[in-house]
Amino acid sequence: MNFKLEEAIEVLERTPKSLEYFLSGLSEGWLTCNEGEGTWNATEVVEHLIEGEKHNWIPRIETILTEGENKPFPEFDRFSHLKQESAATIEEKLKEFRALRKENLSRLKPFITSESTLELTGTHPAFGTVKLRELISTWAVHDLTHISQIVRVMAHRYREDVGPWKEYLGILKE
Amino acid sequence: MNFKLEEAIEVLERTPKSLEYFLSGLSEGWLTCNEGEGTWNATEVVEHLIEGEKHNWIPRIETILTEGENKPFPEFDRFSHLKQESAATIEEKLKEFRALRKENLSRLKPFITSESTLELTGTHPAFGTVKLRELISTWAVHDLTHISQIVRVMAHRYREDVGPWKEYLGILKE
Repeated sequence: MNFKLEEAIEVLERTPKSLEYFLSGLSEGWLTCNEGEGTWNATEVVEHLIEGEKHNWIPRIETILTEGENKPFPEFDRFSHLKQESAATIEEKLKEFRALRKENLSRLKPFITSESTLELTGTHPAFGTVKLRELISTWAVHDLTHISQIVRVMAHRYREDVGPWKEYLGILKE
Repeated sequence: MNFKLEEAIEVLERTPKSLEYFLSGLSEGWLTCNEGEGTWNATEVVEHLIEGEKHNWIPRIETILTEGENKPFPEFDRFSHLKQESAATIEEKLKEFRALRKENLSRLKPFITSESTLELTGTHPAFGTVKLRELISTWAVHDLTHISQIVRVMAHRYREDVGPWKEYLGILKE
C-alpha cells in the first residue's frame, strides 16, 4: 500500500490549477470534441468534477465519520451534469472547480485527527464495506483518470491528422 | 481532418506550464514511481519531452523545409534521456522544457508562410513520405500521450489503495 494522506492531498491540490492552465482559452474545437455518442468532452468532464466536489467526496467522508457503516453513502448521480445546461464559460467552470476543491480540502484536513481515522469504514451501496483511506485514494485517482480522459479525447481529434505516426502514439489506441 | 496550425499551437503552448503546475513540489514517491521494469516515471517523461524539443521536432521540420524528401529525418533516440544521469530537480527540468518549447514555437511560426507550406513533405526513416502538417499534429498528440502517461503511472501507484473502487477507475485498467 502506498497511500499517505499528505501525498494524496498533493494531487488533489494540483488538479484544478493544472486543468485551468491546460484548458483556459482553448478553441471550441478542443473543448467540445468527444469520442462519439454518449462520451464526454473536456467541458463535460470539468462539470463532472464540479459535481463530485459538491455531492460526492465530502458527503461520503462525512457519512463515514458520522454514521460509520450504519447508513450507505448518499446517492451520487455520475451523469447529473449532463442534465443541466450551463451557460458558464470553461474558465468560469474551472474557477468554480478550484474554489470548491480548495474549500473541500480545508474541510478534509481537520477530519483526519489520527492515522486510525483513516481506517474508519462506511457502506458503499455497491461494494459494501469501504475504508476512509480507500475513499480518499479514490478521490485522487479519480482526478487522474479524468485528466487522462481529457487528454485522450483531445488526442483522438487528431487521430487521422497524424498520418502514419498513429502507430507510435499509444493514446490513439486506447 | 481537424488540424489547424493555431489550434495545434494552443496545445503545444499549454503543456509545459500545465506540467509545471502539476508536478512541481510533488513528493518523490509520485515522481519516481513507474509501471515496472523498463517503464518511465514522471521525471523520465519530462526528460524525454526535453530531448524532443532539442533533437526531434524542430530538426525534422527544418529537414522538410530545406531538404524535402531528399534526406531522411535526422536520428532521434527515444531512449537517450535514460543514458545520462541528471542532477537537476524536477522544477529545473520543467523550467528547461518550458524555455525550449517557447523558443521552438517562436521558430515554428515564421516557417509556416502559407497553408501550402503545411503540405510540404519529408522522408521518415520508417514511414517514408510524411507531411509537415502530420508532423506538427504528431508533436501536439505526442504531448497529450505523455501527459496521459504521467497521470496513468501516478494512478497505478494507488492501484491497491483504492480498494474495491478499482473496478470503476478506467485508468487502472490501462
